[in-house]
Amino acid sequence: MPSQPDESSSVATAEPGATPDPIDGFHAVIPAGGAGTRLWPLSRAGRPKFLLDLTGSGRTLLQATVDRLAPLTGDGNVLVVTGERHAEAVAEQLPGLGGANVLAEPSPRDSMAAIGLAAAVLLERHGDDVVLGSFAADHVIAGAEAFQRAVREAVVAARAGYVVTIGIAATGPSTAFGYVRAGAGLDLADAPSVRLAAGFTEKPDAETAAAYLATGEYRWNAGMFVVRAAVLLDHLRAQLPALHDGLREIAAAWDAPARDEVLARVWPGLTRIAIDHAIAEPVAAAGGVAVVPGDFDWDDVGDFASLAGLVPPGFASDAGDGDGPTLGDAAAVLRSGSPGAFVVTADGRTVSVVGVPDAVVVDTPDAVLVTTRAHAQDVKAAVDAWRDRGRDDLL
Amino acid sequence: MPSQPDESSSVATAEPGATPDPIDGFHAVIPAGGAGTRLWPLSRAGRPKFLLDLTGSGRTLLQATVDRLAPLTGDGNVLVVTGERHAEAVAEQLPGLGGANVLAEPSPRDSMAAIGLAAAVLLERHGDDVVLGSFAADHVIAGAEAFQRAVREAVVAARAGYVVTIGIAATGPSTAFGYVRAGAGLDLADAPSVRLAAGFTEKPDAETAAAYLATGEYRWNAGMFVVRAAVLLDHLRAQLPALHDGLREIAAAWDAPARDEVLARVWPGLTRIAIDHAIAEPVAAAGGVAVVPGDFDWDDVGDFASLAGLVPPGFASDAGDGDGPTLGDAAAVLRSGSPGAFVVTADGRTVSVVGVPDAVVVDTPDAVLVTTRAHAQDVKAAVDAWRDRGRDDLL
Repeated sequence: MPSQPDESSSVATAEPGATPDPIDGFHAVIPAGGAGTRLWPLSRAGRPKFLLDLTGSGRTLLQATVDRLAPLTGDGNVLVVTGERHAEAVAEQLPGLGGANVLAEPSPRDSMAAIGLAAAVLLERHGDDVVLGSFAADHVIAGAEAFQRAVREAVVAARAGYVVTIGIAATGPSTAFGYVRAGAGLDLADAPSVRLAAGFTEKPDAETAAAYLATGEYRWNAGMFVVRAAVLLDHLRAQLPALHDGLREIAAAWDAPARDEVLARVWPGLTRIAIDHAIAEPVAAAGGVAVVPGDFDWDDVGDFASLAGLVPPGFASDAGDGDGPTLGDAAAVLRSGSPGAFVVTADGRTVSVVGVPDAVVVDTPDAVLVTTRAHAQDVKAAVDAWRDRGRDDLL
Repeated sequence: MPSQPDESSSVATAEPGATPDPIDGFHAVIPAGGAGTRLWPLSRAGRPKFLLDLTGSGRTLLQATVDRLAPLTGDGNVLVVTGERHAEAVAEQLPGLGGANVLAEPSPRDSMAAIGLAAAVLLERHGDDVVLGSFAADHVIAGAEAFQRAVREAVVAARAGYVVTIGIAATGPSTAFGYVRAGAGLDLADAPSVRLAAGFTEKPDAETAAAYLATGEYRWNAGMFVVRAAVLLDHLRAQLPALHDGLREIAAAWDAPARDEVLARVWPGLTRIAIDHAIAEPVAAAGGVAVVPGDFDWDDVGDFASLAGLVPPGFASDAGDGDGPTLGDAAAVLRSGSPGAFVVTADGRTVSVVGVPDAVVVDTPDAVLVTTRAHAQDVKAAVDAWRDRGRDDLL
C-alpha cells in the first residue's frame, strides 16, 4: 500500500552533539483534551491536566510538549486542537504559537475528529507534502534526543506512505497501556529501525502483558502517530467517508469567513471515534502501519501513583524515618513513619503525614484528597461520587 | 487518719427523677491546662483542647465540664485555674462564672500547685468547712446522673476526712490510663459504695492491665479528687511544706492589693509536681484515700482515636462502602473504600478519603494532618518535628 519514499523531500539527520535542524514540511499536532479525572482535585474540568505543571519543572505539560517538538518542527509549525473552553488558556500558555495555530472544537468529538481536522487544515494551508506528527498534550517524556531520533525516523517512514506509530520500550508488564506488536523490518534508508506494525492490542491483563514482554516484540502504544496528512485523510475517506467529508468541508472554510457557519452546521454530526479504532487498527491489518522503537522514558501521568514517580523526593524530614516526593513547597510537608508518601501542596498549608506509608495527599483551596498509591486509580470513584451529590463546583 | 463525718453539714441526696439540690459548701475546681498535643492541629498551644467543642455538642469541653458540675455546686461555686494566656478566653466562655473565679497562673507549676492554690483561696474565702472537687477541664463524660451520684458520695467521704477519688469502671484493659485499686468498704452513712483506696498504679502494659481487670478491684484513675480544702492543705503541709507555705501566702494575698507582688515573688519558686505524686499516692499508702465507683462513660480525649469514638457517624456517603465520624460539616466529607475514617473539617474545604480505612484527616486553615486511628498517639512526633523545624507558628 505505501508508496516509495518521496525523493524530493529532505530529512535532516542529527549529528551527535550538533543542534539538529527542523524537519522540512513537518508539523506537530497536539490534541489537548481530557480532564485527567484520576488526578482530581489537582486536575479539574476547567483546569485540565495539560494546563498544569505537574512535575515542578516550571512548564505545564502542554508547554513541555511544545518545547519537545519545537526543534523538530521549527517555528510556527505546531497546531493545538482543544475545546473552546480551553482555547484562551492554551493561547496564553503558548504565546509564540499564534492564534491561527489553536484550533478550537465546539464540542468533544474524540481523537479522530481532532487529528483529522488538523490534518485537513494543514493540507489546505501547506499542500500535499505536509507530514504531521500527533502527540498528546499531557504526557511526560524524558530523553529528548531519543525522542527526536524516533520522530525523525518516523517522518522518513511517513514519507514512504506509512501511518507510523512510536512504540515505547516497556519498563514492565503494565496493564494500563495498549501495546503495539512489531513485525518485519522495512529496510528504509535513513530509518533503519522502522518495522511493520503487526497489530495493536487493548490494555491486557497482567498475565497477557507479561507474555507480551517475553516475546520481545511488543511495545507500549503511546498514541503517537506520524503520517502524511494526505495519507491520513485517504485512509479516513476509505474507512469513514462521512467523517472525512465533514472534516474536509470544515477545513476548507477554516481560514475563511464561513468557518463559524460551517462548524455550526457540520461539527455536531461528526462521528465520535478514537484514531486507534478509526485508522490504526484497520490500516495495520492491511499492512499500512509502521512502528518506530522509542527508547525514551514515557509516562501518561495517568494517576497519582504515576505522578509520584515523576517528581523528585522532597525535603529531608526531621521526623524522618522515610521520605517521599512533594509537588509544591517541600518545606511545608512533614512525613513521620510515612516513607514514600506523595504530597501535593497547592494552597500554602502545611501537610503532616503520620504513619501512612505511600499515602497520597493532595491539598487544594477547596478540596483535600487522601488516598494511597495503591488506590490511585480509585480516585475516579470520588469524582463520580461528588458529581452524584451535585457538587459540580468541585469537578 | 480521717476524722468522723461532720454532722453539721447536710448532703442533699438525689431522688430518682427529681432535680437534685446543690451540695452545701461544695466547690468545684477545674484545672484548665495542657495543650492536648496529640490533638494537633485541632488543638494548639494558643487554643488548647479545653477551649474547643470537640464533640460537636455546641459546648466546649470546659463549658461542658462546668455544665456538669453546676447542679452540684450551685451558682458561683466553680473556680477555674488556668494560665494567664488563657484566662481571658476562659472568662469569655464562662460569662456566668465571675472574674474572681478564674485564677490565672503566671506560669505552669503542674497540678498540685494549681489545685493547692484553689484550695487555699477557697479556705480564705469560705472557711474551714469547704469541700472541693477537682475535675479536669478537658475530659468527656456521659451519664450525668451517675456522675452526680458518685460526686455526692465522694463529698460524704471527704467530710469524713478522706481524700476521695472517683474510680471509673474500665471498659477494657487500657494502657493509656493509671488505675486505682479499691480495698475494704468504709460503711459511711449516705455513701454506701465508698471503699478505701488500696493504692494507685501508673499506666500498665497490656498484660498487667488485663490482670488488673480480672481481679475486679481496679478502676481507671481519672484524676478526680474530692477533699476538704483544709484536709488537702494539711496533707500538703506534711508532704511538701515549702509548697504549702508558698500557696498559703499567695492565697492570703489573692483578694488583696498585694496579690501581684506576692505572686511575682513566690510563684516562680513553687515545686512542680502532680497531685497524684504529691498527695494521692503517699496518703493512700497511709490509709487516707477513699475511692467511689463511677459507673459513667468517661474519656480523656487523649488522641484522635479516642475523639473518633466520641462523635457520631457522619453523612451516608454515596460512594459508600463504609461510613465514619465527622467533626464539622459531614456533607463536605466523602469516604470511598474508607470505612471508619474520621474527618475533621475545620476550614470549609471538602475532604475525600479513598481507600484508607480508619484514616484520620484533620483539615485546618494552616495545617492538614493525615494519619490513622492506629497511629493516633504518634501525632506528638509530628508536633515535635515542626517545633524542631522552628515552625512555632503551627504549634
